[in-house]
Amino acid sequence: MSSDLRRSDGRAPADLRPVKIECDVVGWAEGSCLYTQGRTKVFITASIESRVPPFLRDTGEGWVTAEYGMLPRATKDRTPREAARGKQSGRTLEIQRLVGRALRGAVNRQAFPEHTITLDCDVLEADAGTRCASVTGGFVALALALSKLHAANNVRGNPFVGCVAAVSVGLAARVPGAEVRTPILDLDYAEDSSADVDLNVVGTSEGRFVEVQGTAEKGAFSEEELAALLGSARTGLAALFAAQRSALEGRLPAAFKI
Amino acid sequence: MSSDLRRSDGRAPADLRPVKIECDVVGWAEGSCLYTQGRTKVFITASIESRVPPFLRDTGEGWVTAEYGMLPRATKDRTPREAARGKQSGRTLEIQRLVGRALRGAVNRQAFPEHTITLDCDVLEADAGTRCASVTGGFVALALALSKLHAANNVRGNPFVGCVAAVSVGLAARVPGAEVRTPILDLDYAEDSSADVDLNVVGTSEGRFVEVQGTAEKGAFSEEELAALLGSARTGLAALFAAQRSALEGRLPAAFKI
Amino acid sequence: MSSDLRRSDGRAPADLRPVKIECDVVGWAEGSCLYTQGRTKVFITASIESRVPPFLRDTGEGWVTAEYGMLPRATKDRTPREAARGKQSGRTLEIQRLVGRALRGAVNRQAFPEHTITLDCDVLEADAGTRCASVTGGFVALALALSKLHAANNVRGNPFVGCVAAVSVGLAARVPGAEVRTPILDLDYAEDSSADVDLNVVGTSEGRFVEVQGTAEKGAFSEEELAALLGSARTGLAALFAAQRSALEGRLPAAFKI
Amino acid sequence: MSSDLRRSDGRAPADLRPVKIECDVVGWAEGSCLYTQGRTKVFITASIESRVPPFLRDTGEGWVTAEYGMLPRATKDRTPREAARGKQSGRTLEIQRLVGRALRGAVNRQAFPEHTITLDCDVLEADAGTRCASVTGGFVALALALSKLHAANNVRGNPFVGCVAAVSVGLAARVPGAEVRTPILDLDYAEDSSADVDLNVVGTSEGRFVEVQGTAEKGAFSEEELAALLGSARTGLAALFAAQRSALEGRLPAAFKI
Amino acid sequence: MSSDLRRSDGRAPADLRPVKIECDVVGWAEGSCLYTQGRTKVFITASIESRVPPFLRDTGEGWVTAEYGMLPRATKDRTPREAARGKQSGRTLEIQRLVGRALRGAVNRQAFPEHTITLDCDVLEADAGTRCASVTGGFVALALALSKLHAANNVRGNPFVGCVAAVSVGLAARVPGAEVRTPILDLDYAEDSSADVDLNVVGTSEGRFVEVQGTAEKGAFSEEELAALLGSARTGLAALFAAQRSALEGRLPAAFKI
Amino acid sequence: MSSDLRRSDGRAPADLRPVKIECDVVGWAEGSCLYTQGRTKVFITASIESRVPPFLRDTGEGWVTAEYGMLPRATKDRTPREAARGKQSGRTLEIQRLVGRALRGAVNRQAFPEHTITLDCDVLEADAGTRCASVTGGFVALALALSKLHAANNVRGNPFVGCVAAVSVGLAARVPGAEVRTPILDLDYAEDSSADVDLNVVGTSEGRFVEVQGTAEKGAFSEEELAALLGSARTGLAALFAAQRSALEGRLPAAFKI
Repeated sequence: MSSDLRRSDGRAPADLRPVKIECDVVGWAEGSCLYTQGRTKVFITASIESRVPPFLRDTGEGWVTAEYGMLPRATKDRTPREAARGKQSGRTLEIQRLVGRALRGAVNRQAFPEHTITLDCDVLEADAGTRCASVTGGFVALALALSKLHAANNVRGNPFVGCVAAVSVGLAARVPGAEVRTPILDLDYAEDSSADVDLNVVGTSEGRFVEVQGTAEKGAFSEEELAALLGSARTGLAALFAAQRSALEGRLPAAFKI
Repeated sequence: MSSDLRRSDGRAPADLRPVKIECDVVGWAEGSCLYTQGRTKVFITASIESRVPPFLRDTGEGWVTAEYGMLPRATKDRTPREAARGKQSGRTLEIQRLVGRALRGAVNRQAFPEHTITLDCDVLEADAGTRCASVTGGFVALALALSKLHAANNVRGNPFVGCVAAVSVGLAARVPGAEVRTPILDLDYAEDSSADVDLNVVGTSEGRFVEVQGTAEKGAFSEEELAALLGSARTGLAALFAAQRSALEGRLPAAFKI
Repeated sequence: MSSDLRRSDGRAPADLRPVKIECDVVGWAEGSCLYTQGRTKVFITASIESRVPPFLRDTGEGWVTAEYGMLPRATKDRTPREAARGKQSGRTLEIQRLVGRALRGAVNRQAFPEHTITLDCDVLEADAGTRCASVTGGFVALALALSKLHAANNVRGNPFVGCVAAVSVGLAARVPGAEVRTPILDLDYAEDSSADVDLNVVGTSEGRFVEVQGTAEKGAFSEEELAALLGSARTGLAALFAAQRSALEGRLPAAFKI
Repeated sequence: MSSDLRRSDGRAPADLRPVKIECDVVGWAEGSCLYTQGRTKVFITASIESRVPPFLRDTGEGWVTAEYGMLPRATKDRTPREAARGKQSGRTLEIQRLVGRALRGAVNRQAFPEHTITLDCDVLEADAGTRCASVTGGFVALALALSKLHAANNVRGNPFVGCVAAVSVGLAARVPGAEVRTPILDLDYAEDSSADVDLNVVGTSEGRFVEVQGTAEKGAFSEEELAALLGSARTGLAALFAAQRSALEGRLPAAFKI
Repeated sequence: MSSDLRRSDGRAPADLRPVKIECDVVGWAEGSCLYTQGRTKVFITASIESRVPPFLRDTGEGWVTAEYGMLPRATKDRTPREAARGKQSGRTLEIQRLVGRALRGAVNRQAFPEHTITLDCDVLEADAGTRCASVTGGFVALALALSKLHAANNVRGNPFVGCVAAVSVGLAARVPGAEVRTPILDLDYAEDSSADVDLNVVGTSEGRFVEVQGTAEKGAFSEEELAALLGSARTGLAALFAAQRSALEGRLPAAFKI
Repeated sequence: MSSDLRRSDGRAPADLRPVKIECDVVGWAEGSCLYTQGRTKVFITASIESRVPPFLRDTGEGWVTAEYGMLPRATKDRTPREAARGKQSGRTLEIQRLVGRALRGAVNRQAFPEHTITLDCDVLEADAGTRCASVTGGFVALALALSKLHAANNVRGNPFVGCVAAVSVGLAARVPGAEVRTPILDLDYAEDSSADVDLNVVGTSEGRFVEVQGTAEKGAFSEEELAALLGSARTGLAALFAAQRSALEGRLPAAFKI
């Protein structure tokens, strides 16, 4: 990877876009944030309900789930509303399953038995990376909601196994003459459209992976390329954990370790 | 109406909640604003497409339409997502039809032939009055989009017949001993739940009405009460027109008169 | 309003079309009528069930609700069946919500606790005014069903606050030279299509309003025009109350006052 | 079959219920009738459109199709509206396919090329036999619509191969001691619920069958029983052809032979 | 019927296509078979659940029901998947209702109280006759499932009234000069497309009929033609009962008589 | 990984279940196979259509897409039919998107411009690994369909970049005392339910990856564990490529290199 490669917005290959996390942006939700990464903006709420799905009743475990939506003009051209079309697309369902699994990977569900926390991730503006932003911001909203639950004496000990965040990395199309393809971190829409390979990595602040999803849209990837992609992802995740901790600074009870 | 009646948030009966309008809050949409009135927050985009519905083809007229949605946790308790339920509620459909009609009442559609402008009004937080907020904020997003269309030489002259805004007024339950019920302007959720009568008024800055929708949930209303309600609504509308003009100050071409 | 204005069917501006109400036209339903106003024909049944929606359980109140449909060839051109399309239109949902609210405005729901009465209003032929016909005829079917419920000793005292009926009034397009636009009562399809303003008024025989819904399709309306429209509506409502009482003559128990 | 068997309404086993056919009951539809057989009432319209389904384009043939619905309170207990449930039941789809096939069996489709006639059969009151009533009454509405089409010079010669009608016949449960089960014609709801076997027969006035659908709900039937059922059906069909001809008397052009 | 008529595949008019029934082809289902008749292949499972529909609770009766589907490329051209379209076609619903009724006609439901057996009939390849194949093969899967239920001591005595099978018979278009149309047994796709009349017969091994469904797509049929069709169907049914018995040979408990 | 660990069916950790691929099992489809891996059975057809989705028109490229379904009793307990529920689950949509992407990774789409090949993967019996079986078997059906297209002179040169197959690998729960978790290849249902981590790998016979999807249901995984999982997957893929080549032996034109 050439260290002097510059991207259209001036970033180096391993640079994230600027991240901004505003907490508690609305009033009814137990937790909420407006998550911004570059031009991608996701509005996230966390809602607590004191019930669990049937398969968890009387098991002493809580549940975390997620739903995802895109507002019609989050995209370059207006996209018809899923509620009007009468069904959610495969893409929507796939993303919300991913976000739910990722955030369940962040918590010890025995710490909040008989409660469900639902993350609603609604994209106000999409410039790629919306599923990763939903995970990274979703963690913050989840932590805020768990604080409320803790204040009501419904959390036992530390509910977290660590921070969980997600980032995308891509392999840019091969430059003529180059041996390998370059990993670029945190693709924007233009980069995402032209990348050969797209990898989404959900990781914990303990250095482990919750999800690794790599897809070759063009040109399958080698094990070496996968290793390079994962390395780039680790760099990005470290920065995202820092942003999460900074946003949550002073907002969590002492018992919570993230 | 007793001038010393005070509401739970300290407002007098004829006071609006504080209004805030932030323009151009996202990038893809031709017009957008975040509209806040008290705790009610609506995120609004206006999208331009260079086509019209079949019944307007070759008529020399443009079209304005609206869609409405509530994010799941805009409400006190989480509401299931309409996209997941597979259909839009009657309430949603009724509101978006109202918002579309109201904004068509603001414009001369011959000024932008062969173009459709779609307003998407998505409620981030609901503390009553979301349909009125969608109309009032929708007017601002529509004006911003028409400016873009003007800049592209696709608007002929002044597209506006004036500002259009909407406000709710209610009749509070009769106080024992009182002869008439008191009109209260711009109901919040608690007031809306207990009011006897709810009136939504869409008006133009020329002093005329585009829509008047009054409903007696309890206790039908008299013609005198209707007149008092309309009077209170006029007061509120005047303040809303001022807020719209202030938000749009310096953002519209000289040919636009609002 | 010029007293010599004549409409295409010979009516004066403040004339209703001929109204005909046939009671008990089918056998299973607890109440039913075939309501005809000019060429508009609505077939209405009222069904009693001894249960209420969850939010009314153990409150000592009954419920009244309505559903609305148009048979496919009620209209000039055949309209696809909503059951085949798989969803009800926004218009249908809006109308059935209105009819339900209107008829709840006619009754004291504490008179028939733990019972729900569902009005089904199906339009056999539509020549405008179908929502108003559904309200006016719906009142008759509701009264017939309440009589049955009374006969079974399930009604306490007089369940009615009065008759409730609905009528439409429009503002015809301005005649060149005229100062104001003329209110015309009970629009038929041709008149409805060309009117500037359309007002639906649901009123009680006590002279109060349950709903007032005015919409300017073209040319917003002034407060003076609204007053003229409401005056015309009152004339129409008086005639409709008379028609309802005549249809119900001898069919209601003495305890019922309408 | 014992000639002295009497049914609850006094009919002999081979008696039809009284049939009444009112023609041209609404204004927009090209053909319409209100068809009554006993307490079963079906409101039927026939709509002409000058187009055919894709598979018939440029074949010189027209098309006849049918849709069927039950109003919610056509039944003893109120049935939820299919439009509200979002789909048509299997029973509805099965019946409308049958009605369409039956009426296509009545006509020579080359007589009205490039036109589709849609029969809408909506049951106002159901006391069994609604699919047969839809066929028998549907033929009348179809004939009235074809007369309109003939008047517009869009029918070539006689479009009919004869009258088509439908009737149900059942086998009553075996009386102790009897050798065979008795065929009873034109079952009402109570009879239909208790019959062992139900046969619907669609026949032409030329003495041939278009559809024969026999179902043993209890106790399969023998070839002898089938013959007895068909014999009873023929009796009923003859009476129905007479009722159709009487209803259409003087309403069809001379070129139409039924 | 000329005895020397030969069909495109060499069959005589009253010949079935070769039938093959493979039992217990998958592991989870209580009963299963792959049913092949000519090129028509249906994969059938029978599933036992220890509950009954609400209307049968506490009646001492079990239930048998069926569902039907076609895989997308069972047909000559690929048919869109019903799950993707979001609804089952009228044809699918009609067939599965028929299969359920037919198989209920094979059993004494008091022999397996409080149990439901669901037959799933999925067509892998369709060369006409798929509804009949579903009935004939469905009987085999049902018998296998009832054996499992018997082994678990949940069947009282012999649950069968006999074998039940189904076959189609058609009337070929009239040959010039011939007096009557020829019945041909077990139509394939090409024959089915060109036949004038199509009759599906569900019969029991006791020589009685459970369903008789005859439809004239072209040219209504006479009572004599119906008798000839039924005679041909009887021949086919006899062969199908033999195939069912052969497939089930040695697989059923002694108490089961088929 | 202990070499003496044995699984319930006697397999070593890195053993696949027995694979069986039967080609051309039905007649209408251009390609088909019945793919069996242990008890998992998937019925797959490939259908050719001479059109492409709008975004590929006039680009000189063909398209490959996939749909996936589970027959109701493929599972331990019967699963309701998606066509009856009216929508496809998120799981179904996610799998069919994966299968489509995987198989597009196997081909050079410029070799068959203006043609779409649709793979339908319907699970007859599910014992885990159905998405991988759909990819591995789907490749075979795709190759058979491309042979047909080649025979019709609609394929330019070699359409393949190599074989593509998919396999699952899991991390079993940690044995007390062990340092790392053991990778086990090709999980069956019981193993899949208890595994900590599940990785699906789609690879090409050139040793590259098309998709890598790893999910930690319990206990996030380290980079070392990921490497061990990928190593196990490579072993499995090699065996699957051999099975594909064996099944296709003698069935592909000389120009096809796999």
